[in-house]
Order: sequence, then structure tokens, then C-alpha cells
Amino acid sequence: MSSDQVMRRNCHAWAARDDSGLLSPYEFERRGVGSNDLSVKITHCGICYADVAYTRNKRKNSVYPVVPGHEIVGIVQEVGDNVSSFKVGDQAGVGTYLDSCRHCEYCDDGQEVYCSKGIAVTINGTYEDGTRTQGGYSSFIVVDERFCYKIPEKYPLALAAPLLCAGITVYSPMIQHKMNQPGKLVGVVGLGGLGHMAVKFAKAFGLNVTVFSTNMSKKNDALNLLKADRFVLSSDKEQMAAMAKSLDFIIDAASGDHPLDQYMSLLKIGGVLTLVGVPCEEIKLNPFSLLMGMRSISGSVVGGVKRTQEMIDFCAEKEIYPEIEVIPIQYANEALERLQKSDVKYRFVIDIENSLK
Amino acid sequence: MSSDQVMRRNCHAWAARDDSGLLSPYEFERRGVGSNDLSVKITHCGICYADVAYTRNKRKNSVYPVVPGHEIVGIVQEVGDNVSSFKVGDQAGVGTYLDSCRHCEYCDDGQEVYCSKGIAVTINGTYEDGTRTQGGYSSFIVVDERFCYKIPEKYPLALAAPLLCAGITVYSPMIQHKMNQPGKLVGVVGLGGLGHMAVKFAKAFGLNVTVFSTNMSKKNDALNLLKADRFVLSSDKEQMAAMAKSLDFIIDAASGDHPLDQYMSLLKIGGVLTLVGVPCEEIKLNPFSLLMGMRSISGSVVGGVKRTQEMIDFCAEKEIYPEIEVIPIQYANEALERLQKSDVKYRFVIDIENSLK
Repeated sequence: MSSDQVMRRNCHAWAARDDSGLLSPYEFERRGVGSNDLSVKITHCGICYADVAYTRNKRKNSVYPVVPGHEIVGIVQEVGDNVSSFKVGDQAGVGTYLDSCRHCEYCDDGQEVYCSKGIAVTINGTYEDGTRTQGGYSSFIVVDERFCYKIPEKYPLALAAPLLCAGITVYSPMIQHKMNQPGKLVGVVGLGGLGHMAVKFAKAFGLNVTVFSTNMSKKNDALNLLKADRFVLSSDKEQMAAMAKSLDFIIDAASGDHPLDQYMSLLKIGGVLTLVGVPCEEIKLNPFSLLMGMRSISGSVVGGVKRTQEMIDFCAEKEIYPEIEVIPIQYANEALERLQKSDVKYRFVIDIENSLK
Repeated sequence: MSSDQVMRRNCHAWAARDDSGLLSPYEFERRGVGSNDLSVKITHCGICYADVAYTRNKRKNSVYPVVPGHEIVGIVQEVGDNVSSFKVGDQAGVGTYLDSCRHCEYCDDGQEVYCSKGIAVTINGTYEDGTRTQGGYSSFIVVDERFCYKIPEKYPLALAAPLLCAGITVYSPMIQHKMNQPGKLVGVVGLGGLGHMAVKFAKAFGLNVTVFSTNMSKKNDALNLLKADRFVLSSDKEQMAAMAKSLDFIIDAASGDHPLDQYMSLLKIGGVLTLVGVPCEEIKLNPFSLLMGMRSISGSVVGGVKRTQEMIDFCAEKEIYPEIEVIPIQYANEALERLQKSDVKYRFVIDIENSLK
């Protein structure tokens, strides 16, 4: 056995074995802690729609068994010799990717997620040496310190989990498009895991927030729980027409096919709509939606390492906390079912520490 | 007869009478010169694709007779009492709109073309009092001085005409998206009236320019006449693949349906593609074209009054001149036919002064 193999450690997990996506207990080995690595004992893992996609092979590239989970938080339990930013006992987070080439223009620019050579995604991914990655429905994870985030001590770990994907996914384009300007008007389309974080960030930035939903039952939460300024039922043509050309920005976090032209018409001249989910198989748009108003439609996925840490620190400073429902790992299959029906307020977080034995 | 009617003047023109679009001589009256107006004796008028659209009722809203032409230049022949910016004998230009409300947030912000109450477009438009506008295939035009541009004395009028639509249409989004950064890489898709101006502006801004065309015959002009740095035949998959993720910006001036995803893939992370034509009835895009790279797609139409004057002055300063083919009005019908086949290098300009009697 090589020294590397000696150091490998057994990891408890739950994995899907085929495209039924059904999760069940699974044991596998993680690599030993290299000199730049740290090992995080996982306390909590958020449930993201990606977990459904990977476990059920929606992208037709799943290699089973698949351990899902890329909203990972826990406590540092071991650090390599060269690790300088973390010490044993620190709160830490791991997000949607575990490695990148670290040397291309995008890695150098803090945009590791867009690495020219591709990233090792946390679920169903491949490290440079060809070994497979496995996600956070597991007892611990080993990661290079560059791809690990500090969770401030006062920030509850269960609440931090959704920041690692849902949080950065909405925060990053908000910064890119300079939405952090107090007094500007933003619309948030869709009030799920991503949308509810968009409302929280927008309010923290001092924006005037309108929530658009197809579901009237979201109104109370939008206005009272999340403190949005306005709620519009998107099927109400009069309410929609009254909002024409009124918004500086729209964050579109709705899933499933939905008409984009009607939202573009709500933007002021020069306004930007940013897609933070995967809304549909094909974006369809009347060209005049863009032309008659210098409007833009944009998209992004999660964010770079530096931006992610900035977002976590911003949440700690502003006391921005996701709304979560904590569940045991034994409830994960049912949670994934419910997630597909959007039946969650607003993010499931698995209590790994107390339920995965 | 009211005093207004007394002052009205007869104007020679060529107009379309029905949706055949066939142009023939036509006489009509223009309003008298009000105190804020000036009258411009038209020397030249550029031919824009809009002339085809209006004369042939492509937008299903043409009210005949239609006098086309919204790239209008000439000499000021009369000024109202309050006109302070122009004097008789000045070179002047009139573009795609003749009036706006002048008081809304967009008019106040120099974005008159996006006026909340709508603009009086130069062709097939309506003034606030309900009278119809008529374009520049005519002997003179009366316009409020706010909507008239100064053409610097040394700038040849025939060459100035295309600036009023083609020029501002590409210049405005280039400024909006901060493309005027020397050393950045821009792609120009489609080398017609708009595209060739985009190349000229891009070179003047110090950009590295790649021209994309479906037509190999454009290569020589792209490289030698317009001084682009690179020419890519867009049907050549290898050449296209070699350009992946290499461009900061793309100006898409191609007409007709063309696949946008392949161009989005040529943008660097955070890159912007801006539509300056009306490419198709519906924009279709894979959402991952936006998501996997923080990319944006944007659009705009012409530009505000201030930006238009800035563009004209920039062209004079940098000696940027459109490539034109000067024709008599009697050739206009044939020119419109040729324009539809993209058989023009690169803009027809009608010599109104010497041919419209």
C-alpha cells in the first residue's frame, strides 16, 4: 500500500445507486489530508435542487453511486502542514466545487468557478487525478484550504449551509450588476431557496423589493417574513401592467418555463434581468424586449472563492440568515420529493452530525 | 386660413403609395417654421433598412403615402426666432425621431428615444397634434432645434448621412457597455451598413476587431478596407472553435435568423453580446449560454440626442467616414431592392440636392 492509501479514511454517507435517485447508507474512502488540505467534520448539509438532478441523472452524466450535497458546513478536525488559514475547531464551509486549475486567467481573477480547465464539482465530479468527488451527505470531507470558507464563529452552522450554493448564486450577480445601490428597485421572480435569499440580500442592500410569484400563498411570507415592499401575483395582468418600466433590476429565480418578455417589460430603460436558476430548456425572447430599452438579460452560476467568502462575511455582519427546515438524513428521500414540488420553506438542511451514524 | 396654414410650405418628395413600396414623386406640405424650429434644405439622405420596412408595410402600421428616409443631412435655410444653436447656412442633420415629450425622466436623462410618452419617429410617425411625419426623401424638413444635430463644417454631408441612424445605432451600445477600452477584443457579426460602422468605431477606440460573416467575399473589405484584425467565416466550425471564450464584446449586426449560442460561446466570462439589428422574430438561447459565464445579451435602438451629437463630433475628430454609394433619387426603388439582398457597400446615400427637382 502506498502512503497515500494508508492515510485514506472511511467515510459514512448516503448515496443514490441508480437513477431512481433513492438514497441509502453508503461507505467509501476519502483521500488522506495532504499538506494543503483540511478535513471538515460535517455537521450540516443543505439540500439543493442539484441534489435531485445528480441523484436522478437529470443531466445524463451521473456516475453511481452518487453522494449528493454541496452546501456543506462543519468543524475543522484535521489540517495539513501547510494550512495557514484554518485550525482544528474552526467553523468551515465547502461549496459547489472542490478544486480548479488555480493558474488560468479566471482562477487568477477569483473566478475559479469558470476555470479554463474546468472545476472539480463537489457532486459527481472528477479530481485532476481522475478520482471521483462525493458530496456532503457524508460524515466528513477533505478539501484544499483554498476551496474552503470560514464561517464566523457566531454564525450558526445549520443556517450557514444554504449560503454555500443558494446564497452565493444570488449574491454574485447582484454584485456583478451593481444592485447594491440603496433606493434602487428590484424585482424577485420566484420565492424558493434562491428567491428568498435574493429578497434578504436586496433588503440588506437597501433596495425596494417587489416579489413576483404565481402563488398567492407566498404573499404573507414575502411581505411579513422577508420584508419585501410589494407582492405581485404574476398572473394578474393589471398588477403586472402597473409595474411596467418600473424596475432597475430583476432577479429571476423561477424554475420551469415562464414568459420572460413580460418581465423584461417591467424593467426601466437600461435595466438588467439576471437568471439565477435554470428556467427552461430554451430562453425565448422577443428581440424588441432588449432593443426597445437598452435592456440586458444575463446569467451566472454560484461565484468565485473570494466573492463567496465576502458573501458569508456580509451575512454575518448584517445578520442575514436563510429560512431553513432542519431534517435528519433519514428524511432526505422525502425531502427531495418535496423539493421537486417546491414544498419547502425555504431550504432543507440535513442535521448530519446528529443523524448520520 | 389660419396663420399656421399661411406659413406652410410645399415640399417635393418621393413616397410609397401602397405596400408594394414603389416610390414615385409626391408633393405635400410641411408645417411652417415655428419659433423653436429650423428648416433644413436636404442635400442627402441615407437609405436604411427601415425605409424598406415602412414603405412595404412590414410592421403592418404604415399609413400611406409614406415618405421614407431618416438619415437626413443638409443646410439650414431658415431659423425660428428662438433658435440659438443654428444659423442659416449651417450643416445640419436629422435622424430617426423629430420630437419627444421633453419632460419625462428619459428625456431629462438624454434618452429621448425612450421617451415615456413615445417619440415622433421621422417616418410614418405622428406629431403630438396628430399630424403625420414624413421622412427625408424630400426637399426640406422642419424640426425643433432640440432634435437637430450639428454637422461640423469640414465633414462632407453625403458621408454624414449614415451617421444619423447606422452610426448612432452601433455607437450608443458601444458606449453603454464600455467597449471604448483600447486593447479589448470585440467581434462584429455581419458586415453591412451597421457592421461596417461598428468596425470603424471599434478601430477608433483601439480595439482588436474580429469580423464574422457567412460570406467569404467580405474578407478582403474586412481586413483591407476596414482594417479589422481578423476575419472568421462563421460557418467554419474549426475557426469558430478556436475563438472560444476569446472576446470581451460582440456587436451582432447580422440580419435574419442566426444561432446566438455559438456567438455567446466566443465571449469571455462576463462578456456582453449586443444586438443592434432585429435579428429574428424570436431570440432563442440555451440558458447555459448565459449562466456558464456571467454573460449578457443586450439590445438597443439608435440613441439619445446628446449621444448622437457626441458620436458625430467623434467621427469628425477621428475622421471616421462611412463607406457609401451615392445615387440619384430616381435609383431609389432599385436601391431598396438591392438593400434587401445586402447588395450594397455599405450604405446608399441619395443625392437629394442634385436629383430631386
